[in-house]
Amino acid sequence: MYRTERDLLGKRNIPKDAYYGIQTMRARENFPITGYPPHPELIRAFGYVKKAAAMANREVGVLQADIAAVIIEAAEEVIAGKLNNHFIVDAIQGGAGTSFNMNANEVIANRAIEFLGGQKGEYMRVSPNTHVNMAQSTNDAFPTAIHLSVLRLSDGLTKQIEELIDAMGEKEKEFDDVLKMGRTHLQDAVPVRLGQEFGAYRRVLLRDLSRVQRSICHLYEINMGATAVGTGLNAKPEYIEKVAAYLADITGYPFKTAKDLIDATQNTDVYTEVSSALKIIAINLSKIANDLRLMSSGPRTGINEINLPSRQPGSSIMPGKVNPVMCEVINQISFQVIGNDHTISLASEAGQLELNVMEPVLVFNLLQSLSILENGIRVFTEYAVRGITANIDHCREMVEKSVGIVTAINPHVGYEVASRVAKEAIQTNRPVREICLERGILTEAELNEVLDPKEMTNPGIAGARFING
Amino acid sequence: MYRTERDLLGKRNIPKDAYYGIQTMRARENFPITGYPPHPELIRAFGYVKKAAAMANREVGVLQADIAAVIIEAAEEVIAGKLNNHFIVDAIQGGAGTSFNMNANEVIANRAIEFLGGQKGEYMRVSPNTHVNMAQSTNDAFPTAIHLSVLRLSDGLTKQIEELIDAMGEKEKEFDDVLKMGRTHLQDAVPVRLGQEFGAYRRVLLRDLSRVQRSICHLYEINMGATAVGTGLNAKPEYIEKVAAYLADITGYPFKTAKDLIDATQNTDVYTEVSSALKIIAINLSKIANDLRLMSSGPRTGINEINLPSRQPGSSIMPGKVNPVMCEVINQISFQVIGNDHTISLASEAGQLELNVMEPVLVFNLLQSLSILENGIRVFTEYAVRGITANIDHCREMVEKSVGIVTAINPHVGYEVASRVAKEAIQTNRPVREICLERGILTEAELNEVLDPKEMTNPGIAGARFING
Amino acid sequence: MYRTERDLLGKRNIPKDAYYGIQTMRARENFPITGYPPHPELIRAFGYVKKAAAMANREVGVLQADIAAVIIEAAEEVIAGKLNNHFIVDAIQGGAGTSFNMNANEVIANRAIEFLGGQKGEYMRVSPNTHVNMAQSTNDAFPTAIHLSVLRLSDGLTKQIEELIDAMGEKEKEFDDVLKMGRTHLQDAVPVRLGQEFGAYRRVLLRDLSRVQRSICHLYEINMGATAVGTGLNAKPEYIEKVAAYLADITGYPFKTAKDLIDATQNTDVYTEVSSALKIIAINLSKIANDLRLMSSGPRTGINEINLPSRQPGSSIMPGKVNPVMCEVINQISFQVIGNDHTISLASEAGQLELNVMEPVLVFNLLQSLSILENGIRVFTEYAVRGITANIDHCREMVEKSVGIVTAINPHVGYEVASRVAKEAIQTNRPVREICLERGILTEAELNEVLDPKEMTNPGIAGARFING
Amino acid sequence: MYRTERDLLGKRNIPKDAYYGIQTMRARENFPITGYPPHPELIRAFGYVKKAAAMANREVGVLQADIAAVIIEAAEEVIAGKLNNHFIVDAIQGGAGTSFNMNANEVIANRAIEFLGGQKGEYMRVSPNTHVNMAQSTNDAFPTAIHLSVLRLSDGLTKQIEELIDAMGEKEKEFDDVLKMGRTHLQDAVPVRLGQEFGAYRRVLLRDLSRVQRSICHLYEINMGATAVGTGLNAKPEYIEKVAAYLADITGYPFKTAKDLIDATQNTDVYTEVSSALKIIAINLSKIANDLRLMSSGPRTGINEINLPSRQPGSSIMPGKVNPVMCEVINQISFQVIGNDHTISLASEAGQLELNVMEPVLVFNLLQSLSILENGIRVFTEYAVRGITANIDHCREMVEKSVGIVTAINPHVGYEVASRVAKEAIQTNRPVREICLERGILTEAELNEVLDPKEMTNPGIAGARFING
Repeated sequence: MYRTERDLLGKRNIPKDAYYGIQTMRARENFPITGYPPHPELIRAFGYVKKAAAMANREVGVLQADIAAVIIEAAEEVIAGKLNNHFIVDAIQGGAGTSFNMNANEVIANRAIEFLGGQKGEYMRVSPNTHVNMAQSTNDAFPTAIHLSVLRLSDGLTKQIEELIDAMGEKEKEFDDVLKMGRTHLQDAVPVRLGQEFGAYRRVLLRDLSRVQRSICHLYEINMGATAVGTGLNAKPEYIEKVAAYLADITGYPFKTAKDLIDATQNTDVYTEVSSALKIIAINLSKIANDLRLMSSGPRTGINEINLPSRQPGSSIMPGKVNPVMCEVINQISFQVIGNDHTISLASEAGQLELNVMEPVLVFNLLQSLSILENGIRVFTEYAVRGITANIDHCREMVEKSVGIVTAINPHVGYEVASRVAKEAIQTNRPVREICLERGILTEAELNEVLDPKEMTNPGIAGARFING
Repeated sequence: MYRTERDLLGKRNIPKDAYYGIQTMRARENFPITGYPPHPELIRAFGYVKKAAAMANREVGVLQADIAAVIIEAAEEVIAGKLNNHFIVDAIQGGAGTSFNMNANEVIANRAIEFLGGQKGEYMRVSPNTHVNMAQSTNDAFPTAIHLSVLRLSDGLTKQIEELIDAMGEKEKEFDDVLKMGRTHLQDAVPVRLGQEFGAYRRVLLRDLSRVQRSICHLYEINMGATAVGTGLNAKPEYIEKVAAYLADITGYPFKTAKDLIDATQNTDVYTEVSSALKIIAINLSKIANDLRLMSSGPRTGINEINLPSRQPGSSIMPGKVNPVMCEVINQISFQVIGNDHTISLASEAGQLELNVMEPVLVFNLLQSLSILENGIRVFTEYAVRGITANIDHCREMVEKSVGIVTAINPHVGYEVASRVAKEAIQTNRPVREICLERGILTEAELNEVLDPKEMTNPGIAGARFING
Repeated sequence: MYRTERDLLGKRNIPKDAYYGIQTMRARENFPITGYPPHPELIRAFGYVKKAAAMANREVGVLQADIAAVIIEAAEEVIAGKLNNHFIVDAIQGGAGTSFNMNANEVIANRAIEFLGGQKGEYMRVSPNTHVNMAQSTNDAFPTAIHLSVLRLSDGLTKQIEELIDAMGEKEKEFDDVLKMGRTHLQDAVPVRLGQEFGAYRRVLLRDLSRVQRSICHLYEINMGATAVGTGLNAKPEYIEKVAAYLADITGYPFKTAKDLIDATQNTDVYTEVSSALKIIAINLSKIANDLRLMSSGPRTGINEINLPSRQPGSSIMPGKVNPVMCEVINQISFQVIGNDHTISLASEAGQLELNVMEPVLVFNLLQSLSILENGIRVFTEYAVRGITANIDHCREMVEKSVGIVTAINPHVGYEVASRVAKEAIQTNRPVREICLERGILTEAELNEVLDPKEMTNPGIAGARFING
Repeated sequence: MYRTERDLLGKRNIPKDAYYGIQTMRARENFPITGYPPHPELIRAFGYVKKAAAMANREVGVLQADIAAVIIEAAEEVIAGKLNNHFIVDAIQGGAGTSFNMNANEVIANRAIEFLGGQKGEYMRVSPNTHVNMAQSTNDAFPTAIHLSVLRLSDGLTKQIEELIDAMGEKEKEFDDVLKMGRTHLQDAVPVRLGQEFGAYRRVLLRDLSRVQRSICHLYEINMGATAVGTGLNAKPEYIEKVAAYLADITGYPFKTAKDLIDATQNTDVYTEVSSALKIIAINLSKIANDLRLMSSGPRTGINEINLPSRQPGSSIMPGKVNPVMCEVINQISFQVIGNDHTISLASEAGQLELNVMEPVLVFNLLQSLSILENGIRVFTEYAVRGITANIDHCREMVEKSVGIVTAINPHVGYEVASRVAKEAIQTNRPVREICLERGILTEAELNEVLDPKEMTNPGIAGARFING
């Protein structure tokens, strides 16, 4: 069951129940690429944009009140996600997002026509271009929708980073007394407390959080009113002012009109900036996941300092094996986000003159990065970090048998003498303390203070009183 | 309506109609990351792998014939795509693909149980691990499934590249007589024929094709029989031999057992090699798409040498505008493939010791790259390249007014004199020929030969006979 | 002529005049990789770090005043660049920068020994480890030197970005009246003023500038006193406080001790953050360079809207050809910076537990990115941007013959009617105005206002008074 | 002391002793970017190209014999590296390599002039453009020089990979009897022999070697004779044939003229293909380096299965510490090569129409990747791999205390029973064997065979005879 629609290039049959129209249909035909529809938050964002535009156009007197009313009503259904099935253009597409925008225009127009008692396709009642897209171009409506969808997703991500920071903070406290061997170059170094390590994770995540928050600031500046190339052709100045205000009002974000609409229409650096912040989170998370996998390695033939919660049988062949799957998925999400950032950079660099036509692939990757980080951090926090336990005795034993603690005698005897002690300890497999005593390098009383591993985890020269004593 | 299943870690309710079981359920819970299921070709490939393994296990006498029969029958349904809805683990997941493998094991086991007249979950009849996964580990079954799915998708891609090569070849012939200005640095250079340009596109695509074909050769070596770490523990040598032969037989690919199963289990360079070949295709396609966008730019204020078919209205605001959308989608697909290659490289580098646990994200990106290239090239060929037309007169005019043709007088008068002519032509905006005549640099007869633009598009010194004349 | 030095692993001959010692020699032997020495700013930064440490150690009473004095004096020669030839370890090296640090320690120790009247190699007078490296580890001295060198180079870069912004601002004013065709998708869109385009370049560069400035803020937090793993073992709290203060004092940067030294020792996100800011600059610069190359393309068979200064003959074969070489070098610098950012990301992700041993390759790329951007922007501004001229008449002509101006009639007649006009104009190659008149779509008086291209470059509906008229 | 030279754009003072001329001088002024000169192999390659061109031009009768003779003589000095100091243009430059080519043309012309008894700068005797560059353009001479330099460097790299393969093969044999625990997910899996691991390293490197060898094949096709855009304007067909033959003859590589010179002039995929092969080597090397760092971690608190040779003191503060520096430098070289590949991809994608002007940055990165891999692999092989020793007893102990060996009982008792044994073993920290015996799962005789770890490192079901017994 079809209806027929026409445009400049000809006609197409449209499924009778479809809210989308001929331009969506053409895009569907042209771009059968990924099979993925637009991200739900991008659809929702278009709903908000179209609603705000209709409100502003009505207020400045260019859009009739009755048409505005039904456009707004239809846009609200889009916002509510009720029409998601009618957004069918592919996530990767040519045309700088025109097909996203026209899909939104057509869906809203047809739904609005129904509200007016008409049949889908009767565009003389409500036109996708003349009415729904009034005073807009893809080149302002789409970037504005991107801004909004990124902001909403970054809210979700922010919340999950905060949860992870909280979880790291709990472990920092819980493990504050767990003495363990610090390692540099994967080689035994000097003692550290397990809580200190989690404290460092917490701290780097705090910077990650602040980077995300800073990176989204530019997104409050939108280019509604830029129309085709940023000059604002066909957009009244009053409309430009109103549309930002309405969008701010209905979404709760402090949107305002960009100072330079030409710039805001052609440049995509603000997205790249968000992606860079995400990439840095990814890098840091991957490092943390690697650390946790190292520290939980074994259990019998690895480092075995900590235990991760068991989440699923680890092998289809090896009975009893449990793997650090929640860390591994974080690594993989990180690799995806880093690769996505690369695609985003390529797309951003490919802007030409008044427009960057590569925005669809850019936004596909950006929204994916935001979503998978949010999803990944949520399960990582809940299923991995919060349940970590420490093998306290094993950690302590490893400190005690290590050679690295010899570093603490440096200020007492100099690097060269300390080196000889270290060398002998390694070659003979004997404790540092024993050699120091045997060689008369330090007394037992001195060694008790100087070689106290707990002491070594805080700044200062252990047994400093003996130096000038 | 649920049934309850148990494993080492506890129990879970499973939807009654689901063919998957508890391990799939756990994975579903642990990895709500992208929302994307496994690629259909990966699911199909698991079907083939499980079928071949059952056939081999039956033949070497470790799997009962009746159980083998129902496993094979169930695997065939997987191959036919009938059970795709039961493959529900996320495309990005921890655990090195164990969840993919167990999802396959559970679906096949439960379907096989039904064939035996049992109820889903009665694993004493057919066990996902003991029977379906017999003599296998995720670490051999999953890579083998990757090999197969990549091979199948590369067949599709190959076909599309061949089509594109054919289309380029047609244009090469069609435009063989279209003289136009060649450009280097985007600056006027010397004449070239439009057909020659399409010939160059054809030629680079031929190399791309051969790169893909070469890159997949290593995929014929599979590691079935490697089991957990490549040592072949629990896999009889006869089985190892048979399983490769069966897989070759039922799929039509010349599979054979890898020479070194330890190597084949831990290294992922063979995938990275395919991805590199795809990246190079992407780079070349993006360059071609850019060229076509440049050559079709305008129409009135750009280069306007060729016309691309109109595929959809190009603007929601600018009437009559038509954009090179099929080229733009190629650019974006290329950026995605290049970014995916980056993710794949990161994943490949992250292998550790006996295994690379990052294979899920690697295969997600690799299969996506293959699919979107295939899809993109198909529509690019059909909707863009095949319909290109040339603006022959405009091309010719541009040659005639250019200065670059002065290069042809070099062999006659030397680079220095030619430079002075060029400079005067540019400054006075007059034709090169006119200045040569006026300054008595060459005679009219000489110029007729030397400045013939068609002649310039083939090797040789135009008017060479005048030099020693 | 050699002297012999010894360490734990044996002995080595050192050239007699060399200020470096055995550990430098070993590193030289181990790492003959790039052939590049450390960046001069990194060497200088080590001078500052060692000077500040000596001052602090003297003040807290652990370093004898006479030894401190000669260490400081030697460090000042390093700062002045007098000993650069003695910094011979390769830019890429294993060991987390220990070889950089020991090279500095040895050079300063030997020079200090000379000040005390000794011979190079008499380390009982001034020891590289015990004295020059006192209360330090590579793991705090090296990162601190990185911070300082990045800060100094970013000062230079900042200055050049400011110059470029200034140059763009001049062109923005100079070209404010130059009407030209705006282009989206490389297709004719609607008019814009050339000055507006330069304004957009200025604006995006302002964001780039602020991104650099923000990204370096974290660098003021240094980890001096962290020693080996961030616990501060062997570093007195008073020393930690003093050393940051002294470093701030002698360099002029507001350095302070990081809040969490464990974190500051193992994480490299602060460098990745700087690199991300550089990458975004690179992306934006490359887009600008591409635009300038497009706009200056031709001159006869391209877009030819602007002229770039002639900087060098463009071809070894084509006389009179001049190419946009200053733009092309910007593109290439951008690609290098983007690739470097990738290397930096890889290095940053590879941190493990208490340390990131990949810092040498990270800092090599980061300092190179800073330097080549500074160098490139300087010559781009001076040799390209400041000398750009506009082909005003040609720009105007292209606007007049374009079809895109039809967009301005949308608000008067609707998108659908406007589309028909556009289609006819394109097919018949006639002016939009003529068709509108002929078809009676708008009156001459209306068209005079509605189709005024200058008007189209500012927000508003041209001829709005006619709509309700 | 200067001489003055002139060109179309004006004049410049050139240092009197300099063999380069005004165009080099301009490039020097325009591109003060990296401070790095061209790679010595690129300079040498230009020498070969210019020599071959002079020989061919002489033979086809367009270049006078006496001029050809001195050009050839001068080119031989370039080949010998005697004039390297006169190649002063920056490695990163605009202009598609014109400045490299003109630097070569000028140096050779001036040296040739001297051979004729003239003074530098007397270009009427031998002209850089008319004579040295005869029948050439930068667009064929430069790519041909790139091909040659890449081939020469890949020879060196090939040799080093072969050495590393040899070293891995030695260790494969040496450690064939060293039983150790295999690990997947960094968790205890099943036993493997250390020699098998080195065998896997050898095997992946063999593929790397074949990838390099295959990737360079396209480089034998050169585009000499393409001149400006590939049409061969001003190059006689006989010359085109001769120049490839001469270049093959004097270099020993089987060069031949590319089938399609237009294609060969504009596309850079053959370099990207080499770079991809290098990237895959880098990825594999980094994985191997990571494995070696893991296996040598400790010594006391890590995995400690192998020992790497001590190459230098590892810490400026921790006495006796020795780090895996030769592995770490391999990781860093790998990151550099991967980042370089990224830059190369960006440059390759940026080709436009008849030329890719980004070749300078492309070749800078490609030659660097080749060099640092060659250098790095050489020292890694010699200073690390060849000296690796195994901690045989410790390896064996870890196998014996592991739980993973429980996998071998699967075929005897099924996965589910085996899982319960594993679980108990882990929870009670008791040996698998003990539990099996206690629970009566297998007899002592059976266990002796089934749990033999050596047996587990080869394919097969241990104790298979008991199954049907």
